[in-house]
Amino acid sequence: MQHPTDQHRVAVIMAGGSGERFWPLSRHARPKQLLRLTHDSETMLSEAVTRLAPIIPPQDIYVATAAHLIEPIRQVRVGIPEDNFIAEPCKRNTAGCLALAAVRLLATYGVAPEQLTMAVVTADHVIGDGARFSQSVAAALAAAEQHDALATIGIAPTRPETGYGYIRIEPDAARLEGFEGDLHVYPVGAYVEKPDRARAEEFVRSGRYFWNSGMFAWKISTFLAELVRARPAMYAVVEAMRTAAASGDDAAVHRHFESLENISIDYALMERASKVVVVRGDFPWDDVGAWPALDRTRRRDSCGNVVHGNPVLIDCHDCIVYNEPGADATAVGVVGMRDVIVVVSEDGILVLPKDRAQDVRDVVRELKERQARQV
Amino acid sequence: MQHPTDQHRVAVIMAGGSGERFWPLSRHARPKQLLRLTHDSETMLSEAVTRLAPIIPPQDIYVATAAHLIEPIRQVRVGIPEDNFIAEPCKRNTAGCLALAAVRLLATYGVAPEQLTMAVVTADHVIGDGARFSQSVAAALAAAEQHDALATIGIAPTRPETGYGYIRIEPDAARLEGFEGDLHVYPVGAYVEKPDRARAEEFVRSGRYFWNSGMFAWKISTFLAELVRARPAMYAVVEAMRTAAASGDDAAVHRHFESLENISIDYALMERASKVVVVRGDFPWDDVGAWPALDRTRRRDSCGNVVHGNPVLIDCHDCIVYNEPGADATAVGVVGMRDVIVVVSEDGILVLPKDRAQDVRDVVRELKERQARQV
Repeated sequence: MQHPTDQHRVAVIMAGGSGERFWPLSRHARPKQLLRLTHDSETMLSEAVTRLAPIIPPQDIYVATAAHLIEPIRQVRVGIPEDNFIAEPCKRNTAGCLALAAVRLLATYGVAPEQLTMAVVTADHVIGDGARFSQSVAAALAAAEQHDALATIGIAPTRPETGYGYIRIEPDAARLEGFEGDLHVYPVGAYVEKPDRARAEEFVRSGRYFWNSGMFAWKISTFLAELVRARPAMYAVVEAMRTAAASGDDAAVHRHFESLENISIDYALMERASKVVVVRGDFPWDDVGAWPALDRTRRRDSCGNVVHGNPVLIDCHDCIVYNEPGADATAVGVVGMRDVIVVVSEDGILVLPKDRAQDVRDVVRELKERQARQV
Repeated sequence: MQHPTDQHRVAVIMAGGSGERFWPLSRHARPKQLLRLTHDSETMLSEAVTRLAPIIPPQDIYVATAAHLIEPIRQVRVGIPEDNFIAEPCKRNTAGCLALAAVRLLATYGVAPEQLTMAVVTADHVIGDGARFSQSVAAALAAAEQHDALATIGIAPTRPETGYGYIRIEPDAARLEGFEGDLHVYPVGAYVEKPDRARAEEFVRSGRYFWNSGMFAWKISTFLAELVRARPAMYAVVEAMRTAAASGDDAAVHRHFESLENISIDYALMERASKVVVVRGDFPWDDVGAWPALDRTRRRDSCGNVVHGNPVLIDCHDCIVYNEPGADATAVGVVGMRDVIVVVSEDGILVLPKDRAQDVRDVVRELKERQARQV
């Protein structure tokens, strides 16, 4: 398939997460991106497709996800063609996912790597202000093309969040030229891991730190050129995948893919690349990392509760009570609780304090161990 | 049906409670006495029948309950003949229930009221030490027959419980003669409503107060003679019921029954009767009034939790987590909670602190109102 213009722009939505921290909603075949965490009506993945529509037509939007998730996602009908799925045969983190996407897209479009620009967005984050979002993605695409750079979208932080990674711009960094209005694009100075509270506060004050959103844009030629410098061994595998893909040898693509290191794109490439720019994203963004995120993404009632479905709450304050639509036949009564999360799905029930929300993974682990013992 | 001996002894198990305080386990057709609250295997009603077996044969054990509960109880097969159910056409409290039972039993056995002694026991209490229990019921039957008295079983208190009613014996009360070993029977001085903590402690210290267990024994002639003195208007209705029952006019029995006052047997009769004796019951007894009672009737784990079914508890202390057997397919995870009750049944889920256990009725009320609005 050859596109009419010289430069082809495509988008890849990464949708491979397992979302264990949203148990009991997120099961193996029903990961976070297929949940209706933010809306009552749309899945997060459908929202991601809708958000891209102003800048990338649906036929050029791809979803990269675990092989076993493709069928559940197809059934949800997220609005892209049936063939626009990139199946990861096993988990190789975001570096593996994006290398595979690059290889697949080159084979699909049959163009030279410098003619194909890919935007990379996530399906499991909450994003507000769709217009600003699509402007930011368009700016990232343009910056990647104009500067032969790996472009990333950094979110202007609105609170001293200690759970996110940050991107720092150089103290003396000037905006790159050529971007309209308040779309600021800067060279990246460094990636900073999750800071403590004091540093996070300093980051927000400084105005030179952005949240690392995990969204990118690059020409595939830039991606490959940076990869050969930063990770020559990985590059060699990607080249082998590319050759196999060009000759239609899927088994070989899978075999090479499996030999990739299981590391993130930040660690594999972004932190080592020679030319990275950051587009300042001024839209509301939340990684919806665990249940308490609903306090930020959903409306709270007059007692501070986030309520989904039809539970009976009596004298509860600052709770999250999430009754999955399919489980509505089950009456749920919660009395006299504060700062507690209660989730009822068709498959499971979770009760825990908000400040223990990460520990839901311990429940999932224990359930898996029990299952293993039964087999 | 005529019995061979002059004096017939029968037992009536009162099983009419709705058990709303055990929602979501206890639904309309599944009241507390049909739950497996104390055991994993037997319902409380089956246990009540089993406990009476040493002194009353199953063919002389009757269950008095609301008409709509008879079929569910029959299905559980509690071990008595199919015809030994006394159906209350509407709620008329324990006074109505026991008046109806007296009338029905007179018609069934076709004997004079002085030839029929009935023991009255409850189905929704937990009773330990079956041997002492049956000795106490036998003593109550004998005391009722020998002294023409209304006999009641009072439980020797083991803690200063503020949730129970107490029975006081007179300061100078001597034991009645004719009872073996440590079976003490005393004339009753007074009934005392739920005391505050200080009085309850005094009651326990004094040795002259017993918990009002709601279990009785009387000859039906004594019951009628005391009733005509204490409640002549009620007696007149009971006499009308008796005449109707003797002629097989069930519709008339029901009509008269409905005209009875809706009051308890304590208030209607025991507190006003001329001759009441109390048998000191030295067996473990608990009214299992609400979920926290399971702390007393069930084994607690090393963290103080009472766990039923197969939930995953992580770092929980002093909780009650009750996963109904039928709901076992549902995985339940509870993390980091203390003094909280979590109940999962096929129909409902309840989360509340132990000290709010009574408020489960507010949940039930709200659910009923919602249902009413939908109709």
